[in-house]
Amino acid sequence: MQRSPVLEHLQLLLDEYRSLDEGEVATYIPELGQADPSSFGISVVTTDGHVYAVGDTDLEFTIQSISKPFVFGMALEDCGRDAVLERVGVEPSGNPFNAIVVDDRNRPFNPMVNSGAIVSTGLIDPGFAKTRMHRITSTFGRYAGRDLALDEKVYRSESATGDRNRSIAWLMRSFGAIDGDVDAIVDDYFRQCSLLVNCRDLATMAATLANRGVNPVTGAHALDARYVENVLSVMSTCGMYDYAGEWVYTVGLPAKSGVAGGVIAVLPGQLGIGVFSPRLDERGNSARGIRVCQRLAHDFDLHPLRFQPEVRAVVRRSYHAGETRSNRVRTPAQYELLADRCRSVVVFELQGDLFFSSAERLYRTVTEELTDSTHVIFDCRRVGGIDDAAVSVLRALGEELEDRGVPLLLTDLAPDHKLVPLATEVFADTDGALEWCEEAMLAFAGLDDGDTDTLLPLAEQELFEGMSPDELAAIDAVAEAVKVEAGQVVFAEGDESDAVYFLLAGRVRVRLRIGNGRERRLATLGPGVAFGEMAFLDESRRSADIVAETDTVVARLPIADFRRLAILHPGITERFSVNMVRNLTGRLRRANEQVRRLAE
Amino acid sequence: MQRSPVLEHLQLLLDEYRSLDEGEVATYIPELGQADPSSFGISVVTTDGHVYAVGDTDLEFTIQSISKPFVFGMALEDCGRDAVLERVGVEPSGNPFNAIVVDDRNRPFNPMVNSGAIVSTGLIDPGFAKTRMHRITSTFGRYAGRDLALDEKVYRSESATGDRNRSIAWLMRSFGAIDGDVDAIVDDYFRQCSLLVNCRDLATMAATLANRGVNPVTGAHALDARYVENVLSVMSTCGMYDYAGEWVYTVGLPAKSGVAGGVIAVLPGQLGIGVFSPRLDERGNSARGIRVCQRLAHDFDLHPLRFQPEVRAVVRRSYHAGETRSNRVRTPAQYELLADRCRSVVVFELQGDLFFSSAERLYRTVTEELTDSTHVIFDCRRVGGIDDAAVSVLRALGEELEDRGVPLLLTDLAPDHKLVPLATEVFADTDGALEWCEEAMLAFAGLDDGDTDTLLPLAEQELFEGMSPDELAAIDAVAEAVKVEAGQVVFAEGDESDAVYFLLAGRVRVRLRIGNGRERRLATLGPGVAFGEMAFLDESRRSADIVAETDTVVARLPIADFRRLAILHPGITERFSVNMVRNLTGRLRRANEQVRRLAE
Repeated sequence: MQRSPVLEHLQLLLDEYRSLDEGEVATYIPELGQADPSSFGISVVTTDGHVYAVGDTDLEFTIQSISKPFVFGMALEDCGRDAVLERVGVEPSGNPFNAIVVDDRNRPFNPMVNSGAIVSTGLIDPGFAKTRMHRITSTFGRYAGRDLALDEKVYRSESATGDRNRSIAWLMRSFGAIDGDVDAIVDDYFRQCSLLVNCRDLATMAATLANRGVNPVTGAHALDARYVENVLSVMSTCGMYDYAGEWVYTVGLPAKSGVAGGVIAVLPGQLGIGVFSPRLDERGNSARGIRVCQRLAHDFDLHPLRFQPEVRAVVRRSYHAGETRSNRVRTPAQYELLADRCRSVVVFELQGDLFFSSAERLYRTVTEELTDSTHVIFDCRRVGGIDDAAVSVLRALGEELEDRGVPLLLTDLAPDHKLVPLATEVFADTDGALEWCEEAMLAFAGLDDGDTDTLLPLAEQELFEGMSPDELAAIDAVAEAVKVEAGQVVFAEGDESDAVYFLLAGRVRVRLRIGNGRERRLATLGPGVAFGEMAFLDESRRSADIVAETDTVVARLPIADFRRLAILHPGITERFSVNMVRNLTGRLRRANEQVRRLAE
Repeated sequence: MQRSPVLEHLQLLLDEYRSLDEGEVATYIPELGQADPSSFGISVVTTDGHVYAVGDTDLEFTIQSISKPFVFGMALEDCGRDAVLERVGVEPSGNPFNAIVVDDRNRPFNPMVNSGAIVSTGLIDPGFAKTRMHRITSTFGRYAGRDLALDEKVYRSESATGDRNRSIAWLMRSFGAIDGDVDAIVDDYFRQCSLLVNCRDLATMAATLANRGVNPVTGAHALDARYVENVLSVMSTCGMYDYAGEWVYTVGLPAKSGVAGGVIAVLPGQLGIGVFSPRLDERGNSARGIRVCQRLAHDFDLHPLRFQPEVRAVVRRSYHAGETRSNRVRTPAQYELLADRCRSVVVFELQGDLFFSSAERLYRTVTEELTDSTHVIFDCRRVGGIDDAAVSVLRALGEELEDRGVPLLLTDLAPDHKLVPLATEVFADTDGALEWCEEAMLAFAGLDDGDTDTLLPLAEQELFEGMSPDELAAIDAVAEAVKVEAGQVVFAEGDESDAVYFLLAGRVRVRLRIGNGRERRLATLGPGVAFGEMAFLDESRRSADIVAETDTVVARLPIADFRRLAILHPGITERFSVNMVRNLTGRLRRANEQVRRLAE
């Protein structure tokens, strides 16, 4: 068996509390009295479906009152929140579970006392009373991840001794809280309490509530996610009979116990706990179950009021694009303009989950920093989840930016991300967003790239700088002009390097594929720039993809031809090498700049 | 005034509920009856100290029962959890706040009903009864961030009409829950209820509870962080009189109301809410206060059972070091060995907060993936907070790895991070951790770098490959051997590039400084490798720091001398250029590889 600190800790608690023999096994029906008082099991199931189990976790017992929250959930699904709340309250009663009391609106205090539970059962599928028990059994089965059987003896015994519950049910009908056939409803109530579960089932059922109603082991949908919060709320105030306050004080997890000795507890989003030990304390809760839950909450820091999501700086850092530019290679005149203008482009690197408080801080940070800004970019690479409240705060931010005429550009978001509709534009990465801003600045200044039809002469290629007309003519004679359509790959990473290319018109992108279908642009190159010149080194293979961004014309110079030329014109190699060193140096600097930016 | 979606939303709620005029102003003492029933204020204070306030948020009123949780906190600080719990329970009573009832242990049900509150007041600083009221006032002042005054008229009126509370106090003394001078305690109780606060104070006091007991506006410590959870627990079950269950059902935030019309609510870690409106519903809670809190919880998604920290994949990705190596440049023999051996080094990139559930998943992921691994590296760059439960699960992981003889290397952690003690070694970044593993592999195979005293001949420098003995001799004549001590900077980023360097012995690091005093190694270079060769291009400046990692000897070739040599020996430039293209190409590939790794 796999070693595990969690399993070891559960085993430790099992050993420690095995000696605790306070409390008595329930005896109001003989079948419960037959339970082995020493039975003891603990199980924890995580919301990613991992099951921890120590002790008697396969031993079956009747679910009893632990059925109540699950049936309450079914009533909510069938009738909706308001109709249920009209017939059952949600207040802790301070009275025993079988008390015959109602609140000032003649409702049972809550669905966790017998009166409220029976009303809940009556609210299930009211039109189809005959199939009710079938629905209960199969819903419970989805929670537990297996078919649950009925303990016939317990059921018959519950039914034989259940006059008080019948009395409660008739009283509820007299108050109008039950419409249907009282006998049938009470009968189904006895049956739901007599379903057989084991400790592992309980933990799985609890984990299903923790997992927004979806069984994390089987993936089965057991409860509409909308009602999970309601079920958990009632469990947290009324789940442990009249021990609710101290339970919240010491454990804090929404929970429910049953007289057969089961206890469940739920940590939303994280895990479900099931404990089984039949000895009950004077309140009717499993004595060991209470202690184990208290210890788990303490030892694993599970108290929900303790778990405080740190609203860490949601803005990891911000910077102005004057310092950082896109990886598109520009002309000196363009660079000069952008260095000045792009200082008004602000990039915010966000991190963490976006919920009300973090979104609210983001709003403040951005609006405070926004004075002369013309463009705002949110780098969302490190953003986690987002809820509706955050969306609404950020929508207001988007509107405020729009009012100021400042585009909001978002990067690194899945296409269905809730933030996408708030953006002026969405980009795969910050590089693309920066380029978009630059293009806007250049267009405004009339400095954008002209038409792409004019071919740049070879003499103006950076790698041919300083070459004589003879040398250029010799190169021209062997170089082949190739048209590449926008989107086409000129060569791909790993291809053999057999030619050097010179951009005559258009633009190409140097692209790295970085897994999961994502890519990163190392540079966009324009006319006059060479690429693939590592072919100059015999052994090399292409280290990145080259993709045409626009319709493009390149001069392709096969490396074999180049070598022949170099013999006839010895000056070519030298000029070419020197120019290439310059070219590579520039690229290396840009690559280092990217490393710095990414590592920062 | 600053625009803000939160402020606008609060204003909207204010306008919407202003028309709600159900309920009556409390009249049990004449002073309360004089309150303007139309007064209405809403304030929200965040745990980073931002104050939102709309409506009558400066209007003062008496704190009344909202004093109870704060006094309960003081009792906990003075007597400790157990002693307090012996005298006051934590169960919701289901009875009115002024009921004379006790639980089966003769304790008041909880500190939020009058009996429990009076007992709490009696538990404050029991040895120094005379200074008690002074302490209460100054503690409340720390919560509110300003000195609070006493409303003498309300106090006298409370005292004049307070016989029921006196009766309660004497009964509590008869049960042994109060030791001291009953009259003095009841008197202080009347005074604590008569302290004057405004709506903004209430929100700040709530935010102080949300902020682990520290006032987020002033930074003042108001309550020991250990007891915050206890105070919030009691508020969440007993804070809203007998409305606790529906409150948890619809709002869920720990809260407290007072008969003067104030309500506070707390979202741990995030914010505090204060509402003021004097009309009370039949339970004694501010009618508008309840509605505003319900709307805030709904509109801002604040229900704590709804907020589910997503236990996202705590392992962002993992990879084997066979594919990825440190940036230390190695000999071909070393590279070959490492490509094989380093496959047993596993790097896990972690992300998000580490708490029980995320640590537990991390444990499983790592142990499942660990079969033939020899080294485990946790890249902690994206790790957020960590709690004690996570530390203990990960300690078990560290022990398990130690048992298997697998070192656990952690990167990118602050020196005081709780994970540091679990690590075999800690590194600034993954690059350093990978190098450490490589060194271990190489040492084991007897392939580690030898002593650094032997100088590598110039002929074996990569940039001089293919040069003639004459050319080498000419270079040797002008190159100057320089000793550099470990840690010394050979040149720094931005320095003028006036010489090329050739490593004869030792190691240097190519280092980028990336802000906040952090750095990233681009490469570590060994004998035979040149650096600073971009000096070859006249205009360039150094693009990175070069730092000696060990005592190092370099040959320094001033660029002016090199140019003179090149005139005498024309072959030098060509060989040098070709070699340099090869060298730069390799570096560019490594830099691109780093970009890919960082962007992934």
